[in-house]
Formats: sequence, structure tokens, C-alpha cells
Amino acid sequence: MSTTLPAPDLATFFNPASLAFVGATEDISKFGGRVMRAVLEFGYKGRVYPVNPRYATLLGQPCYPSVSALPEAPDHVGIVIAAHRVLDTLKQCADRGARFATIFTSNFSETGEASGRALQDEIVAFARANGIRLLGPNCNGFINFVDAFAFASTAAIKGPRKPAGDVGLVCHSGGLGQMNIMWRAQEAGLGITYEVSCGNEADLDAMDFMRFMIDDERTRVIMVAVETIRDGRKFAEVARHAADREKPIVMLKFGRTDAGRRAAASHTGALTGADEVHDAAFRQYGVLRVTDCNELYEVAKLLRRRKWPRGSRAAALSGSGGHSVLMADLGAANGIDWVPYQDQTVNGLRELMPDFAGVSNPTDLTSALTGSKHLFEDALNVVALDEGVDVLIPVLVAPTVPAIETVVKLSDNTDKAVAVLWTGYCPNDPLVVASTLVARGLPVYRDALTCLKAVRAAMTYGEFLRAHKRAASEPPVRPAGIDVAQAKELIATGAGNMTERSSKEVLAAYGLHITQERLATNTQNAASSARDIGKPVALKIESPDIPHKTEANAIRLNVTGDAEVARAFDEVMAAARRYQPEARLDGVLVQEMAPGGVEVMLGVASDPTFGVVVVAALGGIHVEVLRDIAYRIPPLTAADALAMLRELRAYPIFGGVRGARPRDLDALCDTIVRLSWLAHDHADTVAEIDINPLTVLEPGAGVRVVDALIIRKQEPTT
Amino acid sequence: MSTTLPAPDLATFFNPASLAFVGATEDISKFGGRVMRAVLEFGYKGRVYPVNPRYATLLGQPCYPSVSALPEAPDHVGIVIAAHRVLDTLKQCADRGARFATIFTSNFSETGEASGRALQDEIVAFARANGIRLLGPNCNGFINFVDAFAFASTAAIKGPRKPAGDVGLVCHSGGLGQMNIMWRAQEAGLGITYEVSCGNEADLDAMDFMRFMIDDERTRVIMVAVETIRDGRKFAEVARHAADREKPIVMLKFGRTDAGRRAAASHTGALTGADEVHDAAFRQYGVLRVTDCNELYEVAKLLRRRKWPRGSRAAALSGSGGHSVLMADLGAANGIDWVPYQDQTVNGLRELMPDFAGVSNPTDLTSALTGSKHLFEDALNVVALDEGVDVLIPVLVAPTVPAIETVVKLSDNTDKAVAVLWTGYCPNDPLVVASTLVARGLPVYRDALTCLKAVRAAMTYGEFLRAHKRAASEPPVRPAGIDVAQAKELIATGAGNMTERSSKEVLAAYGLHITQERLATNTQNAASSARDIGKPVALKIESPDIPHKTEANAIRLNVTGDAEVARAFDEVMAAARRYQPEARLDGVLVQEMAPGGVEVMLGVASDPTFGVVVVAALGGIHVEVLRDIAYRIPPLTAADALAMLRELRAYPIFGGVRGARPRDLDALCDTIVRLSWLAHDHADTVAEIDINPLTVLEPGAGVRVVDALIIRKQEPTT
Repeated sequence: MSTTLPAPDLATFFNPASLAFVGATEDISKFGGRVMRAVLEFGYKGRVYPVNPRYATLLGQPCYPSVSALPEAPDHVGIVIAAHRVLDTLKQCADRGARFATIFTSNFSETGEASGRALQDEIVAFARANGIRLLGPNCNGFINFVDAFAFASTAAIKGPRKPAGDVGLVCHSGGLGQMNIMWRAQEAGLGITYEVSCGNEADLDAMDFMRFMIDDERTRVIMVAVETIRDGRKFAEVARHAADREKPIVMLKFGRTDAGRRAAASHTGALTGADEVHDAAFRQYGVLRVTDCNELYEVAKLLRRRKWPRGSRAAALSGSGGHSVLMADLGAANGIDWVPYQDQTVNGLRELMPDFAGVSNPTDLTSALTGSKHLFEDALNVVALDEGVDVLIPVLVAPTVPAIETVVKLSDNTDKAVAVLWTGYCPNDPLVVASTLVARGLPVYRDALTCLKAVRAAMTYGEFLRAHKRAASEPPVRPAGIDVAQAKELIATGAGNMTERSSKEVLAAYGLHITQERLATNTQNAASSARDIGKPVALKIESPDIPHKTEANAIRLNVTGDAEVARAFDEVMAAARRYQPEARLDGVLVQEMAPGGVEVMLGVASDPTFGVVVVAALGGIHVEVLRDIAYRIPPLTAADALAMLRELRAYPIFGGVRGARPRDLDALCDTIVRLSWLAHDHADTVAEIDINPLTVLEPGAGVRVVDALIIRKQEPTT
Repeated sequence: MSTTLPAPDLATFFNPASLAFVGATEDISKFGGRVMRAVLEFGYKGRVYPVNPRYATLLGQPCYPSVSALPEAPDHVGIVIAAHRVLDTLKQCADRGARFATIFTSNFSETGEASGRALQDEIVAFARANGIRLLGPNCNGFINFVDAFAFASTAAIKGPRKPAGDVGLVCHSGGLGQMNIMWRAQEAGLGITYEVSCGNEADLDAMDFMRFMIDDERTRVIMVAVETIRDGRKFAEVARHAADREKPIVMLKFGRTDAGRRAAASHTGALTGADEVHDAAFRQYGVLRVTDCNELYEVAKLLRRRKWPRGSRAAALSGSGGHSVLMADLGAANGIDWVPYQDQTVNGLRELMPDFAGVSNPTDLTSALTGSKHLFEDALNVVALDEGVDVLIPVLVAPTVPAIETVVKLSDNTDKAVAVLWTGYCPNDPLVVASTLVARGLPVYRDALTCLKAVRAAMTYGEFLRAHKRAASEPPVRPAGIDVAQAKELIATGAGNMTERSSKEVLAAYGLHITQERLATNTQNAASSARDIGKPVALKIESPDIPHKTEANAIRLNVTGDAEVARAFDEVMAAARRYQPEARLDGVLVQEMAPGGVEVMLGVASDPTFGVVVVAALGGIHVEVLRDIAYRIPPLTAADALAMLRELRAYPIFGGVRGARPRDLDALCDTIVRLSWLAHDHADTVAEIDINPLTVLEPGAGVRVVDALIIRKQEPTT
């Protein structure tokens, strides 16, 4: 929607000097009454103008019949009157020069009806034309803890105002965001800066608010819970900006399931819109995806310390063998490396515990912990100096207050990330609990898996930031041997499906290795083409109207000898004519039989959210049944291509299994890079590319594009 | 260890009338001092005899120099003295006629040293010979909430004694079990019956205590957290007993990771000991596996209501669109069906909410909920009557006390399982929290995913119980056409590896379909065998010393014509001789080339825990790289075999993908059933069976065993 608009300055939106509220009432059984109360009770310090023609005063404030009647132009106008009356109020706002409005009112596009949609389009068009930026409609406003301004109706802010902190929150839903995430995060000891419930996102959208929070000095982590991402390009820009400022975005994106349902077909085109593309895009942009509301703030607990792990090497110290085994197990399952300690660390620990036979990690300090006052502190300090450890995980069960303070001190003083697993309580001061420590900045977790998932998220973010910085200094470079103009000309020669041969010519213009082949138009040149190629050949119909040649039975494989080739030519032509009598037949492609290798499917597809996407998988069952597919948004570097292949469960096949030879991964990565540039350069004209199969040969022998299909965006006119 | 012993009567163990404690002290910095305190403070009502030669009285009780000096034979003796002195105390126990001892002392087999192992073996042998049953050594005792008897040192029981409930707990580790699980479960509102920390399990093991809790009337759910299962057969018996009594076992089994590391090799034998076999066994025995400590009690919350869902159909009702989307998403990802409501339900809901355009499930009652006092109650009651719904999930955010009471009442009165997701708090009574409701029996969850995982576990248990009852009335039946005696004779004719041909003869005796084949010993009968078979043949060396024929290059495929067959015979023999000059060569197997089909690997392996295991997978990359393998413990029914295949991610291939024809699943299931009986009947003599590949043809065309290898337990004597 607002992609092309510049990033709005939302400082006044969040902290207006003056506020009008159209539809205010004293009746707290009404939404307008509850929002009015929230404004007054939460501590808004600006000037408030309730607007309602039915009252002269309201909650002790003078009340106005209309925005036009206000004594000054309000910075921000809230609107909770019926949908059909909203436009009239906006007109008054425009007349007075108000710059921001929050429309709580429902019955716009969310109804799914044309009238609601039209009403919404009308108010957005008016607001755009008159320089007013809108939150909503159909939203539950926002809460600004920094300036004590709540503009929402929610039980989540009842009682004394909670202190502002360093975590921001952007949601579509009000109920879910304000209670499940914001209130729960606060109960867990975190402080919120801003919470926004975006509703229909008719004008300002989730990404505008994310951007505001990225630029906000106080906000260190941004939690986001949305049902849809309306604009993938804008999302990418905002995420890049967040990465530049090292502000992690933790994301709960619903809709995995619908995607799963859609994701059944085999066609590359059908691979788009899949939730897996969101996964891939989030990974690529450094957005940390989680699966439930609580994970948002659990991950934020650790990230807000802004100590980015340099790798995935962790150490855990506990006083119980059970905890050590549990941590070892769950950590390894979540991609955390329990590295052996450096010699100095092992020696240091042995000095503390002379009975230690072997010092392993996770480290069980055994019941000796109960007998010694300083063992835990001393052991932690020894391990904190180990340069092979990126994240330190002290495990507490029933610690003393001094033991807890040791951990707080360590966490503040070390440059390693420290995540604490505390499964029990503090016997000598039951008021010291996880949330009081979280409020003091210590990331404390109650459950091992939650702790380790947060640690893994921090490691992933650290990895991402390193890659992001490298990419900033070395952006993807177009490989040599690409002829953009030639590819452009080939693509422009028609519309709709390209034939196999012309598709391959486009690929060849980007330096992809295609099978040796000739187009034959009669039996004689079919036979001579086969002789030129000098090995067994395949014959395939070449027709822009028959993209699925196997279905038409218009393929013959492994043909040798003049007579056989000639017969195969006639058979293929006849089969094509039978299959589709009106099809344009350009001839028969005589093609070398590709040597045996691992067959890969590469593709380019258009995702409705993220645009052009590069797709890689093994062929056949791996795509359709096993859904073992990797996605990336182009252009890509060779490192990106390799990372993409490594995401495939079937990846080890390229290294050779069951005594098979390994495969030419360099050539495969180079092919993916070239394809990604093709996708990038011709995103406006190419709808889809299918390379299926690409045969990957032994190291040094390269790859061969055996079959390919390019579908242009422009439909054929016939 | 104690497999062959009858299930011990542990009533006196848990609730002794008299208790001696050897190593008692007043010093609570010592383990013996803390256990002594726990006994006295937790409310033990029997007679206590502290034993320690250094004291005349201890904490106001007379103290005795030895067990021999006690005024009566104690029912139960606790021991916390040094390891080398334990045996002497046990001798005194035997003299006095004590029946139970808990050995807290460490430094036995857990040290990994021979001396510790020997000491442990010695005390176990003595106890067995003298009718004393032991808990430990190296354990942290147990806590009996039913009779107020704590025999352990843990901060988890500090403060007023928590009420006994209906959930039992068996662990190896003390620290983990007593704090992470027991104390946390109690904090969450659950009541515990018994908690046992088993330590080294030298005599009584986790399964003995599980069995006690299964038979205990008060215990409704048993939580188990163990690092190893020492005896798979005993485990199966205990699990079966639990199923008969409908007492769910929820299990946290560590060690997934080691298994993952081991699981890299390709050989069927290497597929055993894998954590996946534990997974399969747990599924088969109805044991619900979880991944972290908290999931144990979260699942127990729902199961203790003993309302087994009849299917996987759930309904969720909330007042927020966000929650509906979240539940829809996470539920579908966890195998929960959000079924459309029956007409009566839809009409009932429409009467309550005239504005409802469409009634979907999960149901969003919208903000109308805030305006109406009875809407939530009424809507819940309407959906509770829907016979198509198995589990009801009310979603609360900021409910009133009456709304909460409505849900409590509904949960008590309906025969559907009710799981409540409550993400916020109760604004008009902040003392009403999740744990107070759990204590009243209502399963309340704070997070959507936790809630849905518990619901899924209850559904899985319901499914399992139905299958368990069916199986009890229809146990697996040996299929017709099995000649046990002939197979036995064939297996008994040698040792070690069987040749392909004799392996296939064993399979044929169990009614498996093998390829048509003849053993040829010279070029003449090779050629005549091929003529008899009447189609292209494969020639393979037949030698008990060459199990890997491909490696020896002693295979020729797709051979036709007398001369070609004769030449292939000579080549195969020559290759085998080159490969292994001393190998015994029985000749060359001349075999029909199997028709094309889906290639499956079936196997039988010996798992160190669960014994004989049947294995199924697609061949090649599916086993080694993708680890897409299903396991079952034989014997199996056809329904078991089908369920096993359905567990494979690649399962859809049998239905036909990309226009391929479907496959003969009936024949494949029959083959698995027959193989399972073969494994079952010859478990004592057969170590391993590999059928690789088995070609699965089109429906009606059956399957063909193309290659097979049986390895006998007895090693060849040469």
C-alpha cells in the first residue's frame, strides 16, 4: 500500500501535545468510554479534547461537538464513531490541519464485503490527499510506556502503570498482542517501550511502526506478531535497516497451515506463497521466527543484552547430573555445540575440584556445590574466560541469594552472552524470583528448552549480523560471461511458454551449461545432428504449445544409428500431432544423452509477498512428497547458494553416499548464482523458470541442464 | 536385572511402620542431617530409629550404635554411610529381618570404575540372597505425599507439606526430578502421590516403581524422567499393565542425541540402539513421550481427568480473532482437526449471535463477548453438545469470576475432555490464577502450543487405548502358509551369514514372494536356467563368504541369450575369485530381472533395549541420508504394518505421485506381517535380516524379494 511513501516521522503520532477523541463517552461499558479512561488514567500529559455533541463536559473535561469546534488543531485524533461517519470527521481533521488519526472503528475491509472495502479506500484516499497518516481502522490503538500515553481499551494496562523498558511490540490483533504478549512479557519482568495494534493497516502498517522502533533509541528488540506481510520489498528494507542498527526483530507469523495445505502441487509456480518462502525470507533478512507468543519475549530477554554470540559454542554449569544430560541433549538437538573446554579452563576447574576425573561440558559440579560457598562462582569465572565458549549458561536450582548475585555480576561484566536456567526457587528469599532478575537485566529461563531456543536465536542473530556486515562490504557480484541483452532479446521474441531450446538459449546466455543439442526439422538433419553429437541421443518435440513433452509421449531416449534416429524423429512428430493437432511444431530437438549424475531441480518462481524466488531441490519425490526444498531471494552469492543447498535434508547426497562419488558442488553453486541473476535481471518479464532435471556430475565435470522451461509474464495473444 | 523377579509389594517400602536411618546426624550441612530433618519435619508417623555410634540421642530421639542394636526389626532401613561399609549394615539388616533398604550412598557403579561396580554387585547379590529389596545406591530417596513420609534431601519440600494429589513421578536424577518436575508441578497446582529418585537401579528399578503407581488407586498419571531403559521387555510388560488399567505414562527419555550420532551408518544392524527405536516402542506401548520437564506435568494436567478423547476433533472458542488464527495454525500443525460444527451447533450459535455471518471453528465470538454476560457460557454449552467434537478448548483472556466458574462447571459436567487456554488474568479477583484452578481439577494452560500439545497427547492416548482394547480381543494371528519347522531347519544348517539363495528360501518358507531363480554351477546350466526363466536375467555370485556382491563386482544384470549368459557366468565366478581367493563359491544365481516398481528396504534387527525390531524404509538415500525409517516390535498385524508405513514421510509414493501408478500396499503389508513372525519365531537364532530391495509392484501384482541376507546369531566356527 504505502511502499512508495517515505518513512513517516511518528514521534508526534506516539506523543502528541494535543489529542482529540471523537466518540468519547463516560460510559465504560462502551469502547469509547474505556479508551477515554485509559488516556486519563495512564498519565497522558498533553491537552485532551473529548469530542461528542451529546456532552458539554466529560470526566471533568470540556467536551466539544466536533473537531471543527476545537480550540486548537489537535496533533492526533482518535475516532470511534460509526464507520460511515468517519470520513466526515477526517475532513474536519484536514481542515484543522491534524496530521495523525487512529481509527478504532470496525466495519471496513475486514468484513470482506465490497461496501466495507470501498469505505476504507475512500478514507485512505482522502487522508493521503490531505497529508493525514492513519492507524487502523478496526484496531485497538497503541500504548506508549515511554511517555505514559495509552490510546487503547485493554485490561492489560489496569492498575499502576508498568515502567517503560527496552522492548517494542507490533501486532495486528489487539487482544492477542496486548495480553498474550505485552502483559505476559511485563509479568516476566520485561519493560515495553511501545505497543501497536495495527488492525487493517489501511495506511500506516506494521512495518512503519517497526521502523519507528528501530530508530527509537530506547527500543532494543522489536517483537512482531502478524497474520500477513503485505509488502515483501518494504519488509526487506525495514529488516535491512534493523540489521544496520543491530536491532533484532523477533517474529510470530501465523498462517503456516494454510500454506501447508496449498503446498501440495508439484509445479514450481505452486511452490510459491508457501509458508516456507516466508521462513527462507526471514532467515535471509535476519528476522527470528518463533512459533508461539511466549517465545517472543523469551527470546527478547536475551537479545536485549545486545551481546551477540560469536559462534554456536556454549557451556552449561550445574550441580546435577540430570541437568547436564538434559542440557546436553536438548542443546545438541537445537544446534548448540557443547565444546570441550580449553586446557586452561580444565586445569582451573580441576584446581577447584580435585576429585574431578574428567571435566566435561555441560559441567556437573556435583553435590560438592552444596558443600562449598564459592565453588559455583569460581567455576563460572573460570569458564567465562574460556575463549572457545560463546554463551555461558549457569543452571540454578535452589540457589542462595549470594549465588544469584554472583550470576548477575558475571552477566553484567562478561562480554559473553549469559542465559540462566533457574528451575526452582530461592529458599532463603522467596521474593527473589525470575521476573525480579529479568527486570534487573538478567535473562532467566524456567525451562531448559525455552532457554536453549533463546540461546540458539541469539547465536543465529550473531551469525546473521556477521554475514550482513560481510555482505555490506562485498555485495553479490554478477559473474563473468553473462549477456543480459541477448537474454532480454530472446525473452522478448514472444509471449507465454518458451520452448525447451529457446529456454536453454536464455540459460546459456547466463553461462549455464546446457546439453549439446541441435534442432532437426526432418529425418535427414536429425540423423546428421546425431552423428555430429557422436553419442546416444534423446529426441524431444520442440513446440511452444507442448510444454509437457512426456505427457505427449513426444520423447525418445537413448537412440543410436541413422535409421533409429530417423524413425524416432517421425514417431515424435506423429505423437505430438496426435496429442495436439493445432500445436505449432518447430521440429525435434536432438540432444546428447546426459551422463548419469544426481538430478536436481532448480527453479525461479514469483512469490506474492516476496517477489522473485530461487528454488532448489532434488527432483521427483523430494519436491512433491518430502517437500525438501530450499528458497532464496535473488541475487545470490556462491556462499548463499551453498547455504541454500545445505538446508536440504538430502544435502549429504552431494558428498557421495553408499560409495557413490561426490558431486560438483562448485558448478552447482555457480549455476544457482547465475540463475539468481537471471531471475533478478528479468523479474519484470519472466514469471517462472523450471530447470528439471539439472544433472550434477562428478567434481570437475560440471553440470548439465537437461530440460528447461521459461514462462514469460506476458500471456500469448492467441 | 530384576526382570525375572515377581513384581514386589512396595506398600511397606513406601509406608513403613518403623524406619532405621544409618548415618543420621543433627548437622544439616551433611546429607544425613538433611534427610533426618526431612523425615521428622515432613510428618512421618511411624517409629524412627536414628543409627550412629557417635550419638546417644539425636534431635530428641534415642540414637543407636548399629542396626543390630535396634529394639525391633525395622521395616525400612536408610543408609548414608561410606560405600565400603554398606555391606556390613545390610548384613545386620538381614539378621534383623528388614525387608527394604534405601542406599543414598554414592561411589558404586556410577563411578564407571571396576571397584565401584564390584561393590555394587556384591551388595545386590547379598540383598537378593537375603530377601532385601534395595532402592539406589547413589539415589536421593523418595517422597510419599499420601502418608507424609519424605526420605530425601531436597529444598523442594521446604515449608508446609503440600497436599497429596493424583500424579506419580519416577526419575533417575534427584535434583532434576524433585525440583524441575515435582516442585514445579506442585507450583502449577498439581498434587503428587509418590516421587522416587532411582539412582543406580541396582535392584528395584524405575519400572518397579511405575508398576506400584499403576496399581495405586490414588495415582492417575505417572510421570517418568529417565536416562536409560534397562530392560525393554519389562518395560513392555509394565506399559501393557498401565494400558489395562488406563493409567497413562508420560515419559521424558534423555539420550536422543547420542542416538543421533550413532545413527549414521547404512547397515540395518546399525539402525538399532537408535533413539528412533525408543520412539517407536513408546508409540507402540502407548507411552507418551515429551521433550522437556515441564511438558510432563502439562500433559498430566489433562490426562488426570481421565476423559479419553474419541478422536482428534477439537473446538476452540475465544473472543479474539488473533487467538482463533493462532489456535487454528498451531492445532493443525500438531495433528488437531478443527472440524466444522454440526448444523444444530451452527444454528445454536447463530441464535446467540445474530450478526454471525459464518460460524467457523476455532470460533471467534468477537468483541460481543465483552458486552454480554452469558454469551461465552451459552456458546460453550452449545458446542459441548456437538457430537462431532472430541475436545473443547475455551480460550480466556481477562475473564470475570463467573465466566471462570462456568468453565469449571462445564469441565466437570461434560464427558468431553476440556482444556483451557488462559493467557491473561482475572481483573476482578487477581487471586484466582491458573494454579488455583488446576488444584480444583481444571486443566489450565498459559500458552497455546503447550495447551495443544497436551490435547494432542490426550488424543493420542485415546487412540492408543482403543487400539489396545481391539488388540486384546484380536491378538495378532500368524498368517497361513508359514512353515516354521522348515525355516528352522534351513537356519540351523550353518552359522553366520546365509547366502542370498538360502536366505530367500527361509523367506519363502514364511510365504514371502521371491524372484524366480536357479543356482547354476556351470555355463551350461546357467544358460538353461535362463531359458527356463524365459526373460532377461541377473547373474549373482552365491557364496556364504561374499555377502556384498556389488562390492565384489560379482553381479551382471539384464542378460539375455545363451552365449551372453555363459559369458556372464564366467565373469561373475572370476570376479568373485579375484575378490576373495579363499571364498567358498556355491555357484551363480540366475535370477529373473524383477519388473520395475518402488524399491523398499525391509529388515529385522536386534535392539539392545527392546530386542527384535522390524524396520521398513524406502531404499538408498531414504535410509542413510533422510533417516526416513519406521520401526515396530514384532509380531505385527496388517493394521500395524500399514500404520508403520504411514509413519514414513515418503509414504505417499505408494499412492502414486507425478502420474505414477499406485503400489500393492496389501502385498507389502502382508510381507511385513510375515517378516515380523519370522523375526518373532526365530529371535533366538537370527541376528539380522536385510531385504534390500523388495520391489513393490502395481496393485494385484504383489511384491518381489530381489535380494536378501539373513545373519545368524551363531558365528561361523572357522
